[in-house]
Amino acid sequence: MTHPQVAAFSGDASTIRIVGHRGARGVLPENSIEGFEFVLSIGIDLIEFDVVLTKDEVPIITHNHRLHGCRVRGPDQRFLDGKEPKVASLRMEEIEQFDIGKLNGDTAYGQRFPYQIQMDGVRIPKLSDLFQLISQPKYQSVNLMLELKSDPDLVSDDAARERIVAVVIDLVRKAGLSTRTLLHSFDWGLLAKCKRQAPDIPISFLTRMKSNADEVGEDSSTLVTPDLDDTAGCIPDRVKEAGGSLWCPYYKDITNEDIARARDIGLCVAVWTVNEFDDIDAMIDLHVDAIVTDYPGKVQRRLSDRGYRWTG
Amino acid sequence: MTHPQVAAFSGDASTIRIVGHRGARGVLPENSIEGFEFVLSIGIDLIEFDVVLTKDEVPIITHNHRLHGCRVRGPDQRFLDGKEPKVASLRMEEIEQFDIGKLNGDTAYGQRFPYQIQMDGVRIPKLSDLFQLISQPKYQSVNLMLELKSDPDLVSDDAARERIVAVVIDLVRKAGLSTRTLLHSFDWGLLAKCKRQAPDIPISFLTRMKSNADEVGEDSSTLVTPDLDDTAGCIPDRVKEAGGSLWCPYYKDITNEDIARARDIGLCVAVWTVNEFDDIDAMIDLHVDAIVTDYPGKVQRRLSDRGYRWTG
Repeated sequence: MTHPQVAAFSGDASTIRIVGHRGARGVLPENSIEGFEFVLSIGIDLIEFDVVLTKDEVPIITHNHRLHGCRVRGPDQRFLDGKEPKVASLRMEEIEQFDIGKLNGDTAYGQRFPYQIQMDGVRIPKLSDLFQLISQPKYQSVNLMLELKSDPDLVSDDAARERIVAVVIDLVRKAGLSTRTLLHSFDWGLLAKCKRQAPDIPISFLTRMKSNADEVGEDSSTLVTPDLDDTAGCIPDRVKEAGGSLWCPYYKDITNEDIARARDIGLCVAVWTVNEFDDIDAMIDLHVDAIVTDYPGKVQRRLSDRGYRWTG
Repeated sequence: MTHPQVAAFSGDASTIRIVGHRGARGVLPENSIEGFEFVLSIGIDLIEFDVVLTKDEVPIITHNHRLHGCRVRGPDQRFLDGKEPKVASLRMEEIEQFDIGKLNGDTAYGQRFPYQIQMDGVRIPKLSDLFQLISQPKYQSVNLMLELKSDPDLVSDDAARERIVAVVIDLVRKAGLSTRTLLHSFDWGLLAKCKRQAPDIPISFLTRMKSNADEVGEDSSTLVTPDLDDTAGCIPDRVKEAGGSLWCPYYKDITNEDIARARDIGLCVAVWTVNEFDDIDAMIDLHVDAIVTDYPGKVQRRLSDRGYRWTG
């Protein structure tokens, strides 16, 4: 039986799905309710985002374990450059003081997203804020790719890792979203815990060959993710063996053979993070199931021009 | 006394205004309620758009006098290429059948806006739809740059031209927006009629030197606008003499001397349509009052990086 959320991320002959990466990072502040609302307003019904726990165990939506100085401002409206507190050291009431509405254009990360809207008063959302948003009747067809971030300081603290998974799964169940959520991570150990704690919720495996460099301004995943460079050619099999429903390779890693193998063994393939027209075209040529992008308009445009749909 | 809407378009030492061109044409379908809502959601409170009358004299928001084949689809979901009906020949109930949610990427116009979101079911709005949107209490600080398009087939039909002006002004008054609207046009004759029919509503003069070419896919303004190439250097004076409150030059035409002269004689200067970072920077260097743009995020970004505000 296919899980409904896996079906929602799966393409067909005339459909390639679009997944809004951190909302629509190219257009609006990443991992913000404003960004998620935008994505939903333009007919995209699949959202990717990142979850980290605060000191008081509130799952919040943010990418890095430390507040990202080039896009987070304190109550004084200044960017945090050089003094980035760790999320796990802050209580939710402290998190609420920060503003994520602007990017610092003097930083390399800021320069990666020159089209992003600049606003004041945008808050780091709680996971429950997003759950509340998509629980509205008009958003019943929305499905989530919930990325669990694993704290590099806690890689060998098994109890803490179990706890992160438990807190998030509990919230998913209480919101009634266990059939609309994928648990998604670079950390295969964390995904194994998800599978044990919630066998009914499908898991989604992020991969990246070490031969492709990390992107500027991102927490590296190399500490927590398996080294797959030696197993190139059989990564889909490894994902399948680990109980995965989705395989989410970095778009530069994937080949025609990978896609064919994934299809043979019933894996859904969602590539990340595809932002340039040439790369979008290459992914359409490979006929992946889903394209994760910071620029949903660009992917809509190429799919539309080439006669593909992304919903329905 | 300064009209409140003119003050809303005027900058100061630390403020340069951002005007969303046709909403935010670079991001969402132009002249759509969806685009206007987006602009308002990102903290932009000045909107530029275009008004044309249907056969049954309903003012609608669209740029060209003929439905633009590369971005308008019929009920069969196909672009209108080659069979573009004239707006003035269609009744409102016919206009409502068309969909403006997508751009045809095979056309030169479509290729100008590769980031634009692609949607289905987006309708050509009535002017009254926009008035209703901005009449919500949360949008009380929103001001409008309402561009009157003058039908090239009616340039010598004075009664028809009076009628266009009368219908639009009547709607502005009925919506209670005569202190939040600028009447804006390339057609100085039409603006003179506005001034006579509604002396209390400020008028805004678009100009473009003929030496700069028309943009791809746009109705040309050359039929209805005065030839100003011979009067370069004293255009602000001509606008002032014609009763203008705003001067809106094409951004490639403007000089430091023009800005200084406009300031001396109390004209507000809003340049159009500025989309590239180098050009945005040049307009900030000139310290214009307002920048009309298809990409509000890009202008926000440069203003933010350079320490300017755009609202408040």
